[in-house]
Formats: sequence, C-alpha cells, structure tokens
Amino acid sequence: MSRMHFANTRDSDMFYVVGGSISDPFFFLEKEGRRTIFLNALEIGAFRERNTDIEALPIEKLQKKTQKLGELAYAILADSELLGSEIEVSRRFPLDVADYLRSKDVVLNVRTPFMPERAIKSKSEIDKIRGALEITGGAFRLIEKILQKSIISDDSIIYESATLTSELLKREVATYFFNNGMEDPEGMIISSGAQAAMPHHKGSGPIRPNETIVCDLFPRNRESGYFADMTRTYVKGTPSPQTVKMYEAVKSAQDKAFELIKPGAKAKVIHNAAAKAIKEAGFEVGEKGFIHSLGHGLGLDVHETPSISSNSSDILEVGNVITIEPGLYYPEYGGIRLEDVLVVVPEGYELLTLFDKRFLI
Amino acid sequence: MSRMHFANTRDSDMFYVVGGSISDPFFFLEKEGRRTIFLNALEIGAFRERNTDIEALPIEKLQKKTQKLGELAYAILADSELLGSEIEVSRRFPLDVADYLRSKDVVLNVRTPFMPERAIKSKSEIDKIRGALEITGGAFRLIEKILQKSIISDDSIIYESATLTSELLKREVATYFFNNGMEDPEGMIISSGAQAAMPHHKGSGPIRPNETIVCDLFPRNRESGYFADMTRTYVKGTPSPQTVKMYEAVKSAQDKAFELIKPGAKAKVIHNAAAKAIKEAGFEVGEKGFIHSLGHGLGLDVHETPSISSNSSDILEVGNVITIEPGLYYPEYGGIRLEDVLVVVPEGYELLTLFDKRFLI
Repeated sequence: MSRMHFANTRDSDMFYVVGGSISDPFFFLEKEGRRTIFLNALEIGAFRERNTDIEALPIEKLQKKTQKLGELAYAILADSELLGSEIEVSRRFPLDVADYLRSKDVVLNVRTPFMPERAIKSKSEIDKIRGALEITGGAFRLIEKILQKSIISDDSIIYESATLTSELLKREVATYFFNNGMEDPEGMIISSGAQAAMPHHKGSGPIRPNETIVCDLFPRNRESGYFADMTRTYVKGTPSPQTVKMYEAVKSAQDKAFELIKPGAKAKVIHNAAAKAIKEAGFEVGEKGFIHSLGHGLGLDVHETPSISSNSSDILEVGNVITIEPGLYYPEYGGIRLEDVLVVVPEGYELLTLFDKRFLI
Repeated sequence: MSRMHFANTRDSDMFYVVGGSISDPFFFLEKEGRRTIFLNALEIGAFRERNTDIEALPIEKLQKKTQKLGELAYAILADSELLGSEIEVSRRFPLDVADYLRSKDVVLNVRTPFMPERAIKSKSEIDKIRGALEITGGAFRLIEKILQKSIISDDSIIYESATLTSELLKREVATYFFNNGMEDPEGMIISSGAQAAMPHHKGSGPIRPNETIVCDLFPRNRESGYFADMTRTYVKGTPSPQTVKMYEAVKSAQDKAFELIKPGAKAKVIHNAAAKAIKEAGFEVGEKGFIHSLGHGLGLDVHETPSISSNSSDILEVGNVITIEPGLYYPEYGGIRLEDVLVVVPEGYELLTLFDKRFLI
C-alpha cells in the first residue's frame, strides 16, 4: 500500500516524517517504504541538511504545468506509476484534492491513524519525551517551592505579599518553560476549589487554603516537538478527610493500573482495573467521580494512540509511551488527579516520570 | 447555503468563530446565518461566558446513540432539518466524515476559503493587528539598539564581548515577545549574508559587518490570536554600492505599490507595478531578483486572503489587511526585504506599521 498526504508540519504525521518545522504545506508520498516529499525549491537545501532517508524534490517543475493542487497530486501519482493503485490518505487530506483524484478514478483509503507506527517509540523518541518530562518536573518543583514559601492568612494564600492566584503560578511556570526551551501551545491547568472539579477548566483567580489545587502541565519541547504530560494535586493547609480519602483512592487506582501494564495487555482492562479500584474505595465512576478515561499515548501530540479507556480496542506493545491519569471530581470537595508517563518494555513498564508525589504542602 | 465543519480552534476558521481556544475538535453548523457548535459538556460553561451569538449544545446527547463521527455529523444535519440541502464544507473537513455523509446522499461543496468574510476585518480586528504590530515594532527597536551598541572588529560584530549571531538576536526577540504577550509559532527570520539571499532561510551563525541582515518577524498575540508581520533590512558597517542600489529599488517598489492601493484595485496589478519598478531599477523579476509575491492578507493566519501576486484574481476591498513586501535576492550581495502592513480604507489605505525604515546602523 502507498500513502500520500498534503500538509505542513503542524500536522504531527508530517512533523514525524520530517523531524522539523516546514511552514508551507507539501506533498508526501510513500511507495514501497520509499519516502518522497515535493516542496518549494527554497526549502530543499535546509531539508536535505536534516533528512538523508527521504528524497526531496522541487514542486516547481510540476507547477509549471498547473497550480491546481488536485492536478499536482495527480501528476505526482502518475510520475510515481501509482495510477491504478489504492492510496492511503489521512483523514486530514484536503477534501478538494481527494475529490479531484477520485474524479480521475484514483481509489483513496482513509486510514486513521494515518501513521500507526508513531505509537511505537524509538529509543531516541523516548529520550526526547524523558527530557521533556524532566524539565516539566522542574516546573512542579517551582510550584511546590512557591506553595511552601506562601503563608495562609484567613481564607487567602499570600506569596511575596500578594494573593496567590492561578494566573501567578501559570506566569511563573510559563516563564520557566520559556527559559528551558519548552512552549505550551495547549495551555496549562492550574485550578483549585470548585474549578478543579471540572477537568477541562484551565483555572483562574485566587487559590484558597485547604482546597485541592490540580496542576496539569503538558508543554512541548520547542526543538524536538515532543510533549510532556504530568499532573500533581496539592493542598496548602488542611484538606477535609473526604479529600484525603479521594487522594488515596486515585493513588491506589494508579498503582493498580501500573501493575497490569505489559506488552499484550488490553488497554480497556487497565482502565477497568483503575475504575474498579476507585469503586472499591467508595467512589463513583461514569457521570460522577472518575469521569474520564485513564490515559492516552503521548508523543508529537499530547493525545495520541493508544487510548487507555473503557471502549478502547488497543493492545499495549513494547515502545508505547502512555499516561496513566486517574482522577476524582466532586464540586463540593474539588478535584484530584495524578498523572505519570511510562513506556511499555518487554518486562512490563518503565516510569518516565521520576518525580515524587506530595499532597500536603 | 449552510456550512459545517469539524475541527478545533487551531483551525483559524474555528478560532474566528469562537474567538478563543478550544483544544478538542467540535462540530460547527451554520444555517441561515444562525451558528451552533456541538461540543463537550465540560467546555460549554466557558464557551457561553465568551460567546453570546452562537448557540452551544452538548455533543453527549448525540454520542449516546453513536461515537462515530460520520454518524454524529449526519445526526446533526438531520436534527437541523438539513438533509437534502447542499452543505458547504472546508477543504479541511475530515475526509472520512465527508465520505460517510456522501454515502448517505448528503451533497457537500468544498469552499476555499471556507470563511471568505475573514478577509474583511472589523474595527476590533484591525485594532488587534495594530496592537500586535506595535509590540513587533518594539522588537525592531531592540534589534536596532543591539546593532547600534555592537562594535565591528575585523570581520566580526561584537555585542557585550561576544560575537553577534542570528541565535543571539532571536533569543533576545523571543524573550521580548514572551514578556509582551506574543508567541512565535512560525518562528522568525534573522538571517544575513548569503542566507539572507534565501527568503525561507531562518538564519543561523555569526552576523558579519557590511552584509545585509534581513529581520522578518511574524509573531502572534497569545490572547487575540492575530498575527503581526514586519520586515526590515539592516547593514552594520558599509554596504556595497550594489546593495545600496538594491535597497533603494525595493523601497521604491514598495512606494509604487502603496500608491495603487484602494478599494477596487486588482491585486495582480499592484504586484506587477512593484515588479515593474524593480525592473526599471535594473534588477530581475522571476527566477532571480524579486522571486516571490508582493504580499498577502494578514489576520488569524500569517498568510491569508487576499493574495497580492502576479496570478491572483483578488480585488481589494475596504477592510482588507495586507502586507506589501517586495524583496531582492542575490547570493553575491545578500537579500533585501521591506514589509509593512496596511488596511484598505475608502480613500485608499492606512498604514498600520508605524515604524521608520533604517538601513545603515
């Protein structure tokens, strides 16, 4: 089977192929394992410096005949003797180009994921994710230091004479990321109180004593493009007994999930084991309590294959890098979430997040 | 005509609709000017805080029947009584969803651009671009200050006891952008010497005296999402007479283009007038010399409609925000490019880049 795409490197599949950033979209073609990209002649020099295993051809030669994308795609397939073959395309392949090719009797198969091989990380990819996680650990150390230095005054937390807010912590973390080669294109979650009980709430306003503070950081390394993803939950002050019980339940659900991780394990079995641990600790699963999936693949996308959820059909393989992130959410008690990253190895798994868990601070 | 899309807000059309960031993709439907988005219930609260003119409905109700995207899209069209109507879609509409809808006899028209109304900027959008350009002007002041403070020593430029490099200038600019609410998702160009003669070269290594330094900055405001785009070319030291001639030619091409800008003007006529000025100054147009198009629309994308190029069929309208960026490139003399942004107004144009041009520094 051959594969074709037209996209720039903001499409992670194309970043994966190229290993760097190209702003303008280009054609990608793979035939019998041989990869070719057709791009602007101005880009080819820089491309060749970086890639030795992909042929780069100037698109200009074809563009002399036509500027129309569909016709260019057709010409590329014709030149590669692929007319009459089925071509695999991404679901993000441009619809008008697909329509043109099909009008010329090219058979396109939409394949999702388009590059399933991305789910199996190489040693170099694992090192890049590990590096991103190490820097992210530094951001958690910074958050912990700020929380430790802060003092409680009535129902406020005071840091350097100002009320501690989500915004202040995010600004500190963003500056740290910037200075350490990371960017946060998807933002970050530092939320507390009732906000923390909404997993998608990014967090804003004052952080109060005795309430849970969910910090979920998922920055990307500017150069390598690989994401980290880590969550810790803190309380400054004294948590309610119910909150402590929630924290312990989430931690034990995560431990239960870890125990089952090995090549050949079914992703949904791992999710269900964590859900069972949550229930056994006396909490709900589904519409309340543990309301999201247990984890996901991590790489050039912050969420990618495999999915660790109740309706996943994925089976773990050596080289999968996944997050395990159980959580519990109750508006009256706040949210608790713990998230670590691991790689599946022949013997089971290896944690890539080497960072302690502290709850009370 | 009705319109439908499925994307997150990294798709600028959807950012335009929503006015902010939503990480997970959602369905967008417009019927007779009424806009609805179908998204995760967890996102709806935050969405409603920001948008009063778009109805937000939870996707979960539909997801109880099916998790399949194509079936969800079909259910949305059925609920909106749009089966049997033609639906306009983006070229970035997912191909598998399109295939499913078409298998159910839904007629999809691919429209490019999907939201042509984005080319006409509102007063508020113009203010956002102006704001982004003002901050970008500050970055050029910073570059000029560093160049002024630097000293020439043989064939090096020395700044604070170190050799001045593209990397150093980029780091200073990136830090300034970060501290001023801007980000540079597309990177930046600070290149000199032979690199500057390659318009797509981002620039690296030492900056030498007497050579042209092309600085092309196109950051985006983190909050508003709108881009700036500005280019200046400098020489530290003494340029060759030919380089001075090139600079004057580029400047006069830009001035010629400005003169023609008004509502109703054909974009290609403006490009051709600039090209003519370049030729009259004794330089080439096409494969050498002035090798790219004159300009482009600017907004939520750094390159958008209208296109100011020799094969453009666009006609300028009041509210278009465009760049005018002639350039000349010769490996033996380096590159020269000047880029300013303007908005088309009933009387002609108004410059949004209020920043002087300095060449020798």
